Amino acid sequence: MTSPPTASPGRFPAGSAAFPHRHLLGIAGLQPWEIEFILSEAEQWVALNRSGATKRDDRLRGLTIINAFFENSTRTLLSFEIAGKRLGADVVNMHVAQSSTKKGETLIDTAMTLNAMRADAIVIRHGSSGAVDLISQKVDCPVLNAGDGTHEHPTQALLDALTIRRRKGRIDGLVVTICGDILHSRVARSNMISLTTLGAQVRVVAPPALMPEGIASFGVEAFNNFDAALPGSDVVMMLRLQNERMQGDFIPSPREFFHLYGLDSRRLALAKPDALVMHPGPMNRGVEIASHIADDLERSAITEQVEMGVAVRMACLDILTRRARGVEGWS
Amino acid sequence: MTSPPTASPGRFPAGSAAFPHRHLLGIAGLQPWEIEFILSEAEQWVALNRSGATKRDDRLRGLTIINAFFENSTRTLLSFEIAGKRLGADVVNMHVAQSSTKKGETLIDTAMTLNAMRADAIVIRHGSSGAVDLISQKVDCPVLNAGDGTHEHPTQALLDALTIRRRKGRIDGLVVTICGDILHSRVARSNMISLTTLGAQVRVVAPPALMPEGIASFGVEAFNNFDAALPGSDVVMMLRLQNERMQGDFIPSPREFFHLYGLDSRRLALAKPDALVMHPGPMNRGVEIASHIADDLERSAITEQVEMGVAVRMACLDILTRRARGVEGWS
Amino acid sequence: MTSPPTASPGRFPAGSAAFPHRHLLGIAGLQPWEIEFILSEAEQWVALNRSGATKRDDRLRGLTIINAFFENSTRTLLSFEIAGKRLGADVVNMHVAQSSTKKGETLIDTAMTLNAMRADAIVIRHGSSGAVDLISQKVDCPVLNAGDGTHEHPTQALLDALTIRRRKGRIDGLVVTICGDILHSRVARSNMISLTTLGAQVRVVAPPALMPEGIASFGVEAFNNFDAALPGSDVVMMLRLQNERMQGDFIPSPREFFHLYGLDSRRLALAKPDALVMHPGPMNRGVEIASHIADDLERSAITEQVEMGVAVRMACLDILTRRARGVEGWS
Repeated sequence: MTSPPTASPGRFPAGSAAFPHRHLLGIAGLQPWEIEFILSEAEQWVALNRSGATKRDDRLRGLTIINAFFENSTRTLLSFEIAGKRLGADVVNMHVAQSSTKKGETLIDTAMTLNAMRADAIVIRHGSSGAVDLISQKVDCPVLNAGDGTHEHPTQALLDALTIRRRKGRIDGLVVTICGDILHSRVARSNMISLTTLGAQVRVVAPPALMPEGIASFGVEAFNNFDAALPGSDVVMMLRLQNERMQGDFIPSPREFFHLYGLDSRRLALAKPDALVMHPGPMNRGVEIASHIADDLERSAITEQVEMGVAVRMACLDILTRRARGVEGWS
Repeated sequence: MTSPPTASPGRFPAGSAAFPHRHLLGIAGLQPWEIEFILSEAEQWVALNRSGATKRDDRLRGLTIINAFFENSTRTLLSFEIAGKRLGADVVNMHVAQSSTKKGETLIDTAMTLNAMRADAIVIRHGSSGAVDLISQKVDCPVLNAGDGTHEHPTQALLDALTIRRRKGRIDGLVVTICGDILHSRVARSNMISLTTLGAQVRVVAPPALMPEGIASFGVEAFNNFDAALPGSDVVMMLRLQNERMQGDFIPSPREFFHLYGLDSRRLALAKPDALVMHPGPMNRGVEIASHIADDLERSAITEQVEMGVAVRMACLDILTRRARGVEGWS
Repeated sequence: MTSPPTASPGRFPAGSAAFPHRHLLGIAGLQPWEIEFILSEAEQWVALNRSGATKRDDRLRGLTIINAFFENSTRTLLSFEIAGKRLGADVVNMHVAQSSTKKGETLIDTAMTLNAMRADAIVIRHGSSGAVDLISQKVDCPVLNAGDGTHEHPTQALLDALTIRRRKGRIDGLVVTICGDILHSRVARSNMISLTTLGAQVRVVAPPALMPEGIASFGVEAFNNFDAALPGSDVVMMLRLQNERMQGDFIPSPREFFHLYGLDSRRLALAKPDALVMHPGPMNRGVEIASHIADDLERSAITEQVEMGVAVRMACLDILTRRARGVEGWS
């Protein structure tokens, strides 16, 4: 679970190593070198995206990518759409509001429809855990999970890993503290698997009602007290508190939540002096995180996470379509 | 009405025959050779779409196609969007939710707005029969009807004809049985016209309340009893039952509907042994059709219909824009 | 305020004059030559868009344009989307319904997210006056205001100016009468500034409740009586009456409004014999304007306004991205 990565950045030149998975359904099941390979591939896209006004590579020209989003999303959909277009693909979005699921079509029928249109990659966000996996079994092309229920959000974990690797130079051996609604968060789940796989020591912090049972099986340390978890942390990753949890059973009030589990200056001072602050966005300022910490570009990597998101998604779309594109060494 | 097609596939090489219509508003009014011409043209797009990852032809590069959908649709919108993009066009979607019709703009004003933006083709779905025809009279570019009220859905009939022709080798002389809500179905209407024009013998099956008066004028045979219509059928085409008909006046219940008008194994056995099963989708499994029949790839052409949809729409967009593009022999 | 333009069309060849503004937030603050420069640049795009089926220029290839629309819009969004695509850019739309603002994200965080995705231009429509200005201060790329609250809608004023200049040969010295809800109209506001800057004499007409205080500071003449304003008018520009004003406090009824402030034949006869009729659309026929006047192509420039909209937006997107694209003389 916490085995060190078997590969360092740059060890897998583009096009030479064959990523052995057809889909990207989750981080679970990926080998350390596979995660590292995606991160290394993403570096070229960070460079392209920063290279000036023209950000275009045509390797996916003539490919059809369908973004099928059964849940609303701004960031993730935009990020995937931009990623596909910068690689030259024909990108089409299918929003939930237009979905035939409203007309009673089964998920499988939707999948078979997208497949019959000869999609070359399907990116799916769905409110039900496992829905993306189910679709992947019915189609001929790669499926990328853009978040399914409380299960996984693998590209989020990959962009977080890339952000950490670039800021800290490594992931192996770091102490990463993740705080928030661990129970319902697919971001937390994918990150726990990713970061432990890459050799980090992961601590998770949540109120008792938002801490999953059996959390120890992820190879992480669980805390109910945020202050107790922070000492020695290289990275403090705050989770978004979903609005629907903000009232009622799980937490008393946003104000109370911030008091107990929000990141403020006093708490951040408990972590390492150069601890990196992360948040997957969109933030509830003053609930999960104090505004001045979010805006402190020395400490906060929050906008960098968004930037890495486009690069990581370009890497995933490129890698997963190599076999179909007949890239040498990938057939 | 049932005259045999005057042309066989391949008889009209691309670019040599001039399709004489400016718009595609319906199947009504098309000559058999015109329908056959579109189907023959579509074959090259079936081949391109199956040719591998790269599916791109740039003949519509620099053309603007506007998909103006005043009714929700997943499949048809996606299919037209993909078709336009694979031909290299700039495709923009106008969804009903954004439409100025909410602001009280008349349909004509919307049409003139799209026209003033110098669209090269406008694809329209609208809830009112005749709305597409009205728009076509006000614009300078080809208009393609993507479904208008209970009137016509010509590209659906074309993709159905292409599917049948590929599976059965011909349409002329086949017995095609169409079952469901014949009264309200634009799919049924366009198919009745298309299939009889191409020389098929068409039977339509519906409960009395869902059978239009004067159906005989379409040159089809009408049945209220599904079992009585099936013997000798080469094709069994099931229609989608709209949710809004499922309660109240028209049918007693979905369960009862399936009992009387659903396609199950016993009924399918009444048709020819190699009878083809079709459905325009999205299906209500267990209402119009038993799941195991829908999923039997030997008998069911349902996903193939979706595939043919993209090819047929590519053909229509190509053909209807030839005049404006100055293709030799088309000006 | 009413200084004559210091430049005539064609005096600023493309690429040679450097437009000194980073954003297009409003007409306020633009010099006469800057407005004239945009109009002159737009002429090439009018020509391209009319040149035939192929309407494509690749100067924005590889650039990412994000249309972030926090208010619904058909025309303006379509117009910007088509403009960007005809220039070869990768265009992505962010609709309000998908927006994270529903999730409680601040506007600034949304801006920083779009910026982190390395947008090359962001087009924003927002219901709050000043929101676009706020976003422009937080991003590295040009921001184009596509309408913010009751503040400005600069591309509308530019397309109106281009339409007038093409129909009348000049703007300087013309009498332009603008009638409708002056108080809430960003179209009126941007046009008052634009037209007075270009040397026109502007009259504004509104019921007392819909006339802003301090209107004289715009350098325009204010009227409550439409008939009194019309004599001598070269241009009569009708504003759209928002549905939400049509009942209650501001106007008694649509019928009454038309009686007092609608444009009919009798009123139009009070203006100059060749007076041009304009409306930003979508029109409420019979409320602001009589149908037969809107449809009189000799007098009405309403569809031409739509056409000029695409050209002006192409010009703005081209001009504002020149610096980042390293166009000679613009760095």
